[in-house]
Amino acid sequence: MNIYDIAEEAGVSIATVSRVMNNSPKVSEKTKQKVKEIIERSDYTPNIFAQGLGLNTMHTIGVLVPRISDAYMSSAVAFLEDNLHEKGYGCILGCSGFSRAEKEAHVSMMLSKGIDALILVGSTYAGTGASEEETDYIRKAASKSPVFIINGLVSGENVYCTLSNDYQASYDVTARLIGNGRRKILFLTDSHSYSANQKRKGYEDALSHARLPVDPALQLFVKNDIYKARDLLLSQNGLSFDSVFATDDGLAVGAVKYAGEKRLQIPNDIEIVGYNNSSLCICSNPELTSVDNNISDVCCDTVKRLLKVLDGQEAVSAQNVVNCSIAHRETTSF
Amino acid sequence: MNIYDIAEEAGVSIATVSRVMNNSPKVSEKTKQKVKEIIERSDYTPNIFAQGLGLNTMHTIGVLVPRISDAYMSSAVAFLEDNLHEKGYGCILGCSGFSRAEKEAHVSMMLSKGIDALILVGSTYAGTGASEEETDYIRKAASKSPVFIINGLVSGENVYCTLSNDYQASYDVTARLIGNGRRKILFLTDSHSYSANQKRKGYEDALSHARLPVDPALQLFVKNDIYKARDLLLSQNGLSFDSVFATDDGLAVGAVKYAGEKRLQIPNDIEIVGYNNSSLCICSNPELTSVDNNISDVCCDTVKRLLKVLDGQEAVSAQNVVNCSIAHRETTSF
Repeated sequence: MNIYDIAEEAGVSIATVSRVMNNSPKVSEKTKQKVKEIIERSDYTPNIFAQGLGLNTMHTIGVLVPRISDAYMSSAVAFLEDNLHEKGYGCILGCSGFSRAEKEAHVSMMLSKGIDALILVGSTYAGTGASEEETDYIRKAASKSPVFIINGLVSGENVYCTLSNDYQASYDVTARLIGNGRRKILFLTDSHSYSANQKRKGYEDALSHARLPVDPALQLFVKNDIYKARDLLLSQNGLSFDSVFATDDGLAVGAVKYAGEKRLQIPNDIEIVGYNNSSLCICSNPELTSVDNNISDVCCDTVKRLLKVLDGQEAVSAQNVVNCSIAHRETTSF
Repeated sequence: MNIYDIAEEAGVSIATVSRVMNNSPKVSEKTKQKVKEIIERSDYTPNIFAQGLGLNTMHTIGVLVPRISDAYMSSAVAFLEDNLHEKGYGCILGCSGFSRAEKEAHVSMMLSKGIDALILVGSTYAGTGASEEETDYIRKAASKSPVFIINGLVSGENVYCTLSNDYQASYDVTARLIGNGRRKILFLTDSHSYSANQKRKGYEDALSHARLPVDPALQLFVKNDIYKARDLLLSQNGLSFDSVFATDDGLAVGAVKYAGEKRLQIPNDIEIVGYNNSSLCICSNPELTSVDNNISDVCCDTVKRLLKVLDGQEAVSAQNVVNCSIAHRETTSF
């Protein structure tokens, strides 16, 4: 007896049987009871993958990230996995690194694994925006399987993007710091990706709109490492700044360490804002104010559209934008 | 020019071209030279996955973790990926969760993906140790593919384990705290896994060997969440302790927060030790002393033995133990 037999006997859809097995609250008690009784009478073992094997589709989604040790990436993968799992899909994950050849090779590998759809996590897959040709491999992949990109913008048939509104969040953070009287806001980043560029643009526009100068000396690039960020700031003799806006929490914690070394009072002498609202924020002392890009909403939106596409529904939007919020903690006075 | 053209021009099989690209010792110097020259003349980019597709083996290793958002798991995966990648293997990853049914389902799924070997990360796959039957699914899997377990102990043919010496590390930490004059060492954990039990045993034995009582009231269980750990400690009215040994850095940071609320001086009034030596340790203020289970060595050892097994070498040890070390920082006076 398989899932089809159970669904037929109970007079419900396969999805409903799956929901019962996953203890979803969306099924009425009556239906739940009926399905459970049939399952108990049969010797059916709920095994989402074994199910998949017996079907045309493997019910498997490929998820590709550049680097899984990154906190943002690993939490995105965890949210995707949870959401997909709840809908009866299994995940296979690949770590591609950041080089173009490897990203392309990993996309091919994923497609060879009989997946129903491919999710690419992070704006690195969208290239630098310098040329269309950079993202041809994605359109090529999309001719074989729907491709969903998290926080990267690529246009093409069968390509679906969900983006954090990093521009707006960065604009807002910068405007808040300006509102607090800050005039020399240091922008600290570890990336030249699409999303890092959006953040930079938001920062610069907020300065310009407040008729403040955009000083290139106040934009620093450093590897994403707490001590390296701290040391870079300590080495900036003669550069004066009254606040730090970092594009990653790790960098912002480096700024907190810098302030400690310099015996600066946070947030009176210096305000610090991070990005991603990761577990590092709470570890930090004082606790770190950070932009929350609501990665769980982004992942949820991605999975929702993915299911629609696999379900054959028309008119699934190609690009969705999810707003960020600011998690206020002790390193700012807003 | 693709791999087929190269094979044809060199008058060898595709497998031989692949071996040359992977620097296999099984190819004669003469053939190696010939193939390399053709590759150099062409603009062929060795693509490990495209290679795999044309061959009997996919050159793919399956890696299974219970939860990828966990810092220990994600760094293990990153190390495994790096090591395997360097040797010309690609990875597919799965997130199984902790329930027995799901772990078994994911192992089946992995085996269906044409992998060369399976790596299970974390002692959850080894069960609680209560019965042999709990791990039958691993021995069953091992009849189809070699299985490597990181930090879990399972015996069986074609099953290979690499373990952190958590017992010894926990014994050592506890002995150090005792040496510092601590008498009421609180043991804080979030798990009942094999490895958590090893840690508990090391802690208890060190106390016993120092003729100190093993007080069950000083062993607390809490979810792995900084605030939950802090609040649990704050709620222990009447329980006196002079140090905290936590089986995870997140829990230890909770203890640091607790000390802050109670205005206790670290490490004078209270010493705190975490586990895993994760990025949280450096974020914490004061920075956290932590056991480093040398996960990179554990992963490196695993991959080394995996390659030997796939290479058909005999006498690969079934169990290896890797020692931990202690990363000394500001929350202890040792």
